Amino acid sequence: MDGFWEGDVQHAYWRQGSRHGLLRYAWTVLVAGITFLGLAGSPNQSAHAQSAVTAETVASGLSYPWSVAFLPDGGYLVTERDGVLKVVHEDGRQDVVAGTPDVFAQGQGGLLDVVLSPSFEADQTVYLTFSQGSPEGAGTSLFKATLDGSNGAGYALVEGDTIFAGNNKAFGGRHFGSRLAFDGDGNIYMTLGDRGDGPRSQDTSDHTGSVLRLTPDGDPAPGNPFLDNPAYQPEIWSIGHRNPQSAAVHPETGALWTVEHGARGGDEINIPEAGKNYGWPVISYGRHYAGGKIGEGTEKAGMEQPIFYWDPSIAPSGMAFVTSDKYPDWSGDLLVGALRGQHLAKLTLDGEDVVSEEQLLTDLRERIRDVRQGPDGFIYVLTDSDDGKLIRLRP
Amino acid sequence: MDGFWEGDVQHAYWRQGSRHGLLRYAWTVLVAGITFLGLAGSPNQSAHAQSAVTAETVASGLSYPWSVAFLPDGGYLVTERDGVLKVVHEDGRQDVVAGTPDVFAQGQGGLLDVVLSPSFEADQTVYLTFSQGSPEGAGTSLFKATLDGSNGAGYALVEGDTIFAGNNKAFGGRHFGSRLAFDGDGNIYMTLGDRGDGPRSQDTSDHTGSVLRLTPDGDPAPGNPFLDNPAYQPEIWSIGHRNPQSAAVHPETGALWTVEHGARGGDEINIPEAGKNYGWPVISYGRHYAGGKIGEGTEKAGMEQPIFYWDPSIAPSGMAFVTSDKYPDWSGDLLVGALRGQHLAKLTLDGEDVVSEEQLLTDLRERIRDVRQGPDGFIYVLTDSDDGKLIRLRP
Repeated sequence: MDGFWEGDVQHAYWRQGSRHGLLRYAWTVLVAGITFLGLAGSPNQSAHAQSAVTAETVASGLSYPWSVAFLPDGGYLVTERDGVLKVVHEDGRQDVVAGTPDVFAQGQGGLLDVVLSPSFEADQTVYLTFSQGSPEGAGTSLFKATLDGSNGAGYALVEGDTIFAGNNKAFGGRHFGSRLAFDGDGNIYMTLGDRGDGPRSQDTSDHTGSVLRLTPDGDPAPGNPFLDNPAYQPEIWSIGHRNPQSAAVHPETGALWTVEHGARGGDEINIPEAGKNYGWPVISYGRHYAGGKIGEGTEKAGMEQPIFYWDPSIAPSGMAFVTSDKYPDWSGDLLVGALRGQHLAKLTLDGEDVVSEEQLLTDLRERIRDVRQGPDGFIYVLTDSDDGKLIRLRP
Repeated sequence: MDGFWEGDVQHAYWRQGSRHGLLRYAWTVLVAGITFLGLAGSPNQSAHAQSAVTAETVASGLSYPWSVAFLPDGGYLVTERDGVLKVVHEDGRQDVVAGTPDVFAQGQGGLLDVVLSPSFEADQTVYLTFSQGSPEGAGTSLFKATLDGSNGAGYALVEGDTIFAGNNKAFGGRHFGSRLAFDGDGNIYMTLGDRGDGPRSQDTSDHTGSVLRLTPDGDPAPGNPFLDNPAYQPEIWSIGHRNPQSAAVHPETGALWTVEHGARGGDEINIPEAGKNYGWPVISYGRHYAGGKIGEGTEKAGMEQPIFYWDPSIAPSGMAFVTSDKYPDWSGDLLVGALRGQHLAKLTLDGEDVVSEEQLLTDLRERIRDVRQGPDGFIYVLTDSDDGKLIRLRP
């Protein structure tokens, strides 16, 4: 951009004797006005104009909301990290859903992802991930239940069951993951963090630091890469992940994409393939918090490279591919929430290459925990605070 | 990043009964302190911590400095857009160099790039690009001279000659380009903007909106792709460029890389190959200033794609590949100045893919006009203002 912004407007054109000079000047002022629209009061944008979207608050007062799913009747199913599941209505009203599992609500742990079954309209099946406590510590588990809102007395999860529980629980409140995404065969990808204990991501007898692939009942999915290898847990799809809090299946290729937290640097976008090793903590970009080098470096034979990384880290959580036509020019883009970064990253893709990156919603100054495209085609985000908001992006 | 930043520090670990709890908490406070270092007073960085470099001002009071070259004796040769060439000394003193060409100092036009000949130590040859006025308008020209500082009476360019002048001059002060970069054979790449008149970038009889390749004497270089094609100017290397104000030869591949300004969106990084068409104004990412779609879209057969683009635009000017070992982890990265963006973009590359992008120097709140790696291995930038600065980045 250099017509107006290249900074030379002070030498206005009309001094040069062009017969169109005055007309051009008038046009400059008009267009500069349009360009400035929406920049008022947002200091970040002085250096960083953004694609024009308006943040419309659907609901506020949510306590550290973590995930949102869209009910066919237009309501929103929202998890709060301290263990509450709510139905949020379009007018902002909120109903607590009974029947949720007990959660280990410490640190980053608690009630985490929520997704509807692909056959939700027929069976009202809902999946939740959560940090499950025990005398031996906590791990990440998967809960399956039926959402009942038919009795007029409120909402409840019924026939709830913990259908999968990660092994080797541990104390501490860090790095539970976790996101869910359905593949095209109805199986479920589930991401697990390393519980703050890096070597567990390379331990194939351990579910943590891995992407799992499960049947709708929580069993190892057919075709998983290590079903016949006793050194591996049969649920494992890929290993070497640090703390993936974003997962989505690409709308065209059907491949799983994930985004995981790095340390002080090294947040990664990966396209986890069956049986592959994504390197944590042996290889990583960025540095440890104290500045030290991580592991052996950034590359190693037998370990995969991310397709993109952030250094320093933005703390990514939530992701969505844009398929709707509500936003000019966004179709096919990848959106990733940023907690520490306090923005929504919009990445334009050419296949598996990131060819452009833009930071949206910087003027909100909110930590973004989740981003989803609703069935209405609009993008929704959740902000991570004790007054958390469900926000709709209006083009 | 999610250890401290994931936002759950408020649920401190030591409540969980871990025997290392208090020790962990102490370490958290220590490391958080280190991490915050350097963030004070820079609002942008609350959302965007940066690789740690310190901006050290070598000289200030420069008038819209455009380009810097490094003299073997340790001085800096700096162009100011209004037509002045200076030798800037390490202590900040500035000597005006006599013998510069008359420039058309209007709008974006004036005295632009300066580079030393690869054989400068033997012949003291200097190349300058500049906007050259005439009764028919202005165009971009190339000036070659010998720098004489040997007589103790100050610096002068002697034996100066305009060895190339772009054809089809025009009125108006926009889009002159221009940067120079030597290829491995001693020929010179020279970038020219479209003079604010997009179709000229597709006009092969016209030098504007093109990358040229010239001999050290300003003639069409041997091996140029259109030497035998009368429809093309023989200096043309590639066409379809809007306003490239960055050019550098890759230190390993020897290929030319350029960065050009888009409109409201669509700044591009290209690797211009001989005889190819980079699409402006037929294809481009982003939008016109008034919001309208540009040309025919973003792709077309026979026109090349950028390897990366910015939308909205950052207004890129100046670029440098990092080859020095002064900055941990930066080797091989590409630096691009941003005028409107008011930062230094650091792009990590995997071959021709951008795999990570970071904004540096946002706390300066200065428009960055040029970035170079000096022979001392340090990175230098020029800020674009009436109190322009030459800044050295200290790791």
